[in-house]
Amino acid sequence: MKKQLHLGAFLNSAGHHSAAWRHPDAQADAGMNFAHMLELARLCERGKFDFVFYADALNVHEAPPEILARSHHYIANFEPITLISALSVLTEKIGFVSTASTSWSEPYNLARQFASIDHISHGRAAWNIVTSAHDAAAQNFGRDQAIDHHLRYERAREFCNVVLGLWDSWADDAFVRDKAAGIFVDTSKMRTLNHRGEHFSVAGPLNIERPPQGYPVLVQAGASDDGREFAAEFAEAVFTNHLTLESAQAYYADVKERAQRFGRAPESLLVMPGLTPYIGRTEAEARERHEYMNSLLDPTLALSMLSGWLGTDLSPYDLDGPLPELQRPRTGSQSNFENWTTLAKRENLTIRQLMNRAVGARAKSFTVGTPVQIADHMQTWLESGGADGFNILPPYLPGALEDFVNLVIPELQARGIFRTDYTGTMLRDHLGLARPARTPDPVALGVN
Amino acid sequence: MKKQLHLGAFLNSAGHHSAAWRHPDAQADAGMNFAHMLELARLCERGKFDFVFYADALNVHEAPPEILARSHHYIANFEPITLISALSVLTEKIGFVSTASTSWSEPYNLARQFASIDHISHGRAAWNIVTSAHDAAAQNFGRDQAIDHHLRYERAREFCNVVLGLWDSWADDAFVRDKAAGIFVDTSKMRTLNHRGEHFSVAGPLNIERPPQGYPVLVQAGASDDGREFAAEFAEAVFTNHLTLESAQAYYADVKERAQRFGRAPESLLVMPGLTPYIGRTEAEARERHEYMNSLLDPTLALSMLSGWLGTDLSPYDLDGPLPELQRPRTGSQSNFENWTTLAKRENLTIRQLMNRAVGARAKSFTVGTPVQIADHMQTWLESGGADGFNILPPYLPGALEDFVNLVIPELQARGIFRTDYTGTMLRDHLGLARPARTPDPVALGVN
Repeated sequence: MKKQLHLGAFLNSAGHHSAAWRHPDAQADAGMNFAHMLELARLCERGKFDFVFYADALNVHEAPPEILARSHHYIANFEPITLISALSVLTEKIGFVSTASTSWSEPYNLARQFASIDHISHGRAAWNIVTSAHDAAAQNFGRDQAIDHHLRYERAREFCNVVLGLWDSWADDAFVRDKAAGIFVDTSKMRTLNHRGEHFSVAGPLNIERPPQGYPVLVQAGASDDGREFAAEFAEAVFTNHLTLESAQAYYADVKERAQRFGRAPESLLVMPGLTPYIGRTEAEARERHEYMNSLLDPTLALSMLSGWLGTDLSPYDLDGPLPELQRPRTGSQSNFENWTTLAKRENLTIRQLMNRAVGARAKSFTVGTPVQIADHMQTWLESGGADGFNILPPYLPGALEDFVNLVIPELQARGIFRTDYTGTMLRDHLGLARPARTPDPVALGVN
Repeated sequence: MKKQLHLGAFLNSAGHHSAAWRHPDAQADAGMNFAHMLELARLCERGKFDFVFYADALNVHEAPPEILARSHHYIANFEPITLISALSVLTEKIGFVSTASTSWSEPYNLARQFASIDHISHGRAAWNIVTSAHDAAAQNFGRDQAIDHHLRYERAREFCNVVLGLWDSWADDAFVRDKAAGIFVDTSKMRTLNHRGEHFSVAGPLNIERPPQGYPVLVQAGASDDGREFAAEFAEAVFTNHLTLESAQAYYADVKERAQRFGRAPESLLVMPGLTPYIGRTEAEARERHEYMNSLLDPTLALSMLSGWLGTDLSPYDLDGPLPELQRPRTGSQSNFENWTTLAKRENLTIRQLMNRAVGARAKSFTVGTPVQIADHMQTWLESGGADGFNILPPYLPGALEDFVNLVIPELQARGIFRTDYTGTMLRDHLGLARPARTPDPVALGVN
């Protein structure tokens, strides 16, 4: 059997293109339209995606008012934990990934909400672990600035260990509910965590049964050195963003190798680069669609977004001159900075050229072509050590997702590299990930 | 038109009786059985209840292992925010109240999750505001002890003001989404909160549209002086627990008067005492059912629970002697202490008698009788200034709730004091509560 692809659908507002909502066929209010969100989730389930993925921000996208007025991302969206809980009960098989922050939430609350959704959905929940790099988010949680990068990851490590410990509060068979004997629970199968660490003190136990999946699936997207170490230790699927196969291969080899250093099998960590497909029946149609999308993009918005990603206001510079030498920003995504400054240098792009290249796709990798060309791209990355699957970022919704489901997925299925139906009921089944056993009792270890 | 009742259904595990789960017809795993939870919510909707109510605890019920093993409350339940989000999309009209703590959550996260559910449910969300009195909860959030009573309420006041401010981040018509003009949002209709207070610093704005109800409905259950002041300032429905009409009337008059001192109309604050109905076709059958429920209760569990509520270990005392003079506990519910020590004194009860009276119903008021007798009780309280409605606490589930819906509700409807169908779509419609207008911009006020 050929190596199989895993597919996520990363849905964000009316699509990932910064002008997506202006497309005539786009659902402009997508981020706050539950009926539409449900249609999209069901469309993904019809396409046999492993999961739907929802990113998150804990603040309104920062921009001057005239720019903000033209932006549709991270302004007004459903909160993703409440969203996936509701979507899960109106679908059957597909998994749901919600983002939540280790900087701005409490491990007891977070462990509980994800465990609860895992029960409600009968084993289809995943947590996308983020550390929250933005000062604007910090300012909604009593701080002036984001926690520094390295410290954020230290906190995240401790946070995750607490969450895993809480999910192990009860053995899978602790709740006996023996009416005749009057015994509701076997308390010998309960564990108190008694965690006292640098960042958290959490006694436990968690007041919910162990999740159906053991642990909800852990997902992460760190690209920095700290981020990769974190992924290697905890993540079961990692989202990445690479503009070239070479960069994807280097990343793939690196995180798999790091995972092995944590004693993990390479296949227990799935690498899933992001991919924005512009699909046409012909290559010309695909290009036309991509150009049409870009034509809807306001230039002041585009320059402001690029400035934000690069951490420098580019408006004083000549748009038709080269990108100046830039200081690496203190906060924000390190990998966006790296990707785009490297590309500008390599291809000797002007600011305007870089802007057109980067901003439409929101700094994510995109592919323009026919269903066959897009399937070729995916199969090549899959079979040459660049990817275990992809997180698909439709440029606008619902059209671009419909095209992917109706045109690209059958092509992938025909090649024998993607399922034609689900074979299990839980997200771990779709991803080929084992159900984690409960860690043994420390007391029992002490006795041996 | 006669004064109309409002009804909530307070669902807790397999029912409120401490031995509910042992009843032959009870769903013992109710607290973790989503299909069952959904059946109950739909049953309540068939009965035209205003809302279903879910309490919460942020810790596993504290008790010695042999007692905990026999307890079914607050050990393993769905987390209520994720639960109501999922239930809301599988129902049409009924409202959902989830409990959440002002001590152990962040106002930005909480405001967002409730706003999100209000959107997902099209205006059927309510927040039951609790301050978390238990040390065991505090120990899951980095503290050794619960925050002291008065300070908890100070924090809760600030928390609520921040949440209301965040819900007002955007005018109701801020999101214009004008595709042709490229304007997604009118930023002049956005407000940054910039709150810097004693307990919280929250910049805002919230990254979600203003909730359909303006604010999700605010619910509270404080009975102490601080609790009543808090209810008078913020709550739109208040849950109370009274063993006599006189006590209910005194409370009712007091909180309505306090609300007026905050400039509020008395009808903007609904008083809803708890009521556990033991229903039989005859009075004898009702008594028999009540006695049967109590016969399932383990005596060591019962004594431990009473000890917990009264803040003193009663096991050294003679069960057939009087209740000793007790110290008011530092943490825990002040009103439980007050209710049961007063009753014991007034009726000269032994510890055993008090235990049988108090523990089955978990320290809540109960009524044993025919549907007519129970309707009489409710109508009397409604029409004599004791209640605007009731929060119904079925002793076991689903049977006792089915009996209430099938037998008592038709009796209330026949008397013309309860709706025969919903007349609106949002929870505020059911409760007769006005949709709160957005508070005016402070800047605009300054200009006038």
